[in-house]
Amino acid sequence: MIDAVRWICSDGTILDGVPLDSEKLAQSGALRLIDQTLLPEKLEYIIISDKKEIFDCIKRLVVRGAPAIGCAAALGLSAVMQRNESGSVSEFISTAQSVADFLNLSRPTAVNLEWALKKVINCIKQRESDGVDDVVILKAEMLKVALEILEEDIQLCRSIGRFGLEFFDGKKNISVLTHCNAGALATGDYGTALSPIYLAQEVGLDPIVYSDETRPLLQGARLTAWELQKAGIKVITICDSMAGQVMKEGKIDMVITGADRIAANGDSANKIGTYSLAVLAKYHNIPFYIAAPYSTVDCSLKDGSEIPIEQRDAEEIRNFFGRVTVPGNVEVYNPAFDVTPAELITGIITDRCIIYPPFNMKTIVN
Amino acid sequence: MIDAVRWICSDGTILDGVPLDSEKLAQSGALRLIDQTLLPEKLEYIIISDKKEIFDCIKRLVVRGAPAIGCAAALGLSAVMQRNESGSVSEFISTAQSVADFLNLSRPTAVNLEWALKKVINCIKQRESDGVDDVVILKAEMLKVALEILEEDIQLCRSIGRFGLEFFDGKKNISVLTHCNAGALATGDYGTALSPIYLAQEVGLDPIVYSDETRPLLQGARLTAWELQKAGIKVITICDSMAGQVMKEGKIDMVITGADRIAANGDSANKIGTYSLAVLAKYHNIPFYIAAPYSTVDCSLKDGSEIPIEQRDAEEIRNFFGRVTVPGNVEVYNPAFDVTPAELITGIITDRCIIYPPFNMKTIVN
Repeated sequence: MIDAVRWICSDGTILDGVPLDSEKLAQSGALRLIDQTLLPEKLEYIIISDKKEIFDCIKRLVVRGAPAIGCAAALGLSAVMQRNESGSVSEFISTAQSVADFLNLSRPTAVNLEWALKKVINCIKQRESDGVDDVVILKAEMLKVALEILEEDIQLCRSIGRFGLEFFDGKKNISVLTHCNAGALATGDYGTALSPIYLAQEVGLDPIVYSDETRPLLQGARLTAWELQKAGIKVITICDSMAGQVMKEGKIDMVITGADRIAANGDSANKIGTYSLAVLAKYHNIPFYIAAPYSTVDCSLKDGSEIPIEQRDAEEIRNFFGRVTVPGNVEVYNPAFDVTPAELITGIITDRCIIYPPFNMKTIVN
Repeated sequence: MIDAVRWICSDGTILDGVPLDSEKLAQSGALRLIDQTLLPEKLEYIIISDKKEIFDCIKRLVVRGAPAIGCAAALGLSAVMQRNESGSVSEFISTAQSVADFLNLSRPTAVNLEWALKKVINCIKQRESDGVDDVVILKAEMLKVALEILEEDIQLCRSIGRFGLEFFDGKKNISVLTHCNAGALATGDYGTALSPIYLAQEVGLDPIVYSDETRPLLQGARLTAWELQKAGIKVITICDSMAGQVMKEGKIDMVITGADRIAANGDSANKIGTYSLAVLAKYHNIPFYIAAPYSTVDCSLKDGSEIPIEQRDAEEIRNFFGRVTVPGNVEVYNPAFDVTPAELITGIITDRCIIYPPFNMKTIVN
């Protein structure tokens, strides 16, 4: 199994969920990430407990994918606070809050980031109002919550996979087009969009995946192709501009992508290019699915127009691993996400059920 | 003016059309190309007269764009044959034919390549049947025809520009989305898709161009942005996957692309990704135009299904200027072109007229 986000104890034990013995919680430890900027050339881990480094790792996409960002932020917040020397509970909580606020600014679109940080902070605040006055207990408690978030994410991935497997209908060699990376590297476990594919492979259906390379940062080429290949799944990489052509050639049975935030009406923000795929799928009568855990749903937003869209640095397009591809003073437009309106979505695969139009996302988060 | 394809005489004179004095035709000379693989970082010219080098330059996209390939092939064939030492006219013609057949294999999709080579060969064959028995005359004649092809291309570009300018309707700041490079670097002069834009700029309409970067070889980012910027035209580079989003944001008034081959019914082959753009334009009710000279039309093909589509080396996607972006043993699909069906095309801007549906391309080539 790919372990993109884990907790590493001071004795080197790797935790992927809540440990049976509470001794592990008392050990200091750190956040361990696969450095995804180095894939597919090198598989390297990075161990961090400094808030600026954690911020930087989320910002630079060392760790990316909405669920993985949530897990990394929660574990990262714990790693920072394990080292905090506040004497009083109130001072500890106020520092934790400021670290959480800081980490929350690292990526604006993924709702899981805010969701996970809030969950950890709310837990220690609750403990304070329960009368706990020992910082050591808070440290153990917050790590436990962070590990629960990771463990839950692993379960959510499997649930999404089981629901999504339905669309394979027991058939062999079903061909799925996906965009970016909503796989093991984007989560604690099997991913969201890729989870049904991993499960289809497990039950012997030999699925075929067309993976958009996903400019500008090539998560599809670098990450999706890498992890599916590691699992022995047939994967074919294409440039984003080729999706229409492979659909026209009849090569695609369905499209599944992840989501970074889903509004109450089903409008879904995901990696830039997803919206184009949805339009193309509609034109070719190919079903288009979004796969995401309930924590991606943000019912405070009526529709997609309220989802903030991160604009990223022009240099991501202008330079390609150091090679200049756009003349210096030419303007570049680099939105990191787009919003696919609900009317282009055939179904939203969540960990709780598959939701069909008209999407009423409130039903699954309450 | 950008001079992507020219003839360079032995005294260094650059010819962009038929010279007034026939002395120039008697001079030996060579094909001179801008090495487009080095743009936008370096503007370098390459001077060649060896058939393998010319083949290689077309294959490696040192020169690219259907009209420019036609001009380069005709001038290149002349450059090779200027150095030929055949004593007899029949031997000379048979060698020229074999060089032409060889060069014709360098790119399979662009019809201009075959068209231009045939035009040169037919001319010397005609001279032979006229009774010419002097190889020196044939050498001058074939260069004259090649220069006529270049000169004609320059005129064709201007005509396309004048017809296409109609769609700007005298309005300022019209925003055009284009794909790949169908500009000065792809032709002898102002380009095809970009020619109306250059003319709009000349008459003070300050057009705005969104340029798809055009994976895998980034002709949009590297070449279109470079040449438009050189002409002082506002150009914004986007990744191919962002086209849907900029259309949705209302930023695009029309799409104009070039074409590499147009079938009798109007189906048009162009750089991979054009078809996706046409589907997206349709969905957003944005007019979609193809711009190409009459020589791009191939009425021997009933429709687009008969257009051969070049499959290019997987390494173009797998490696990005030396950096590995797809894991080694992952399959890659790399069609260089796609075919946009006539029903997605609003109009075809040619050098002779604008053709509207139902497209009957035979009307302009006879």
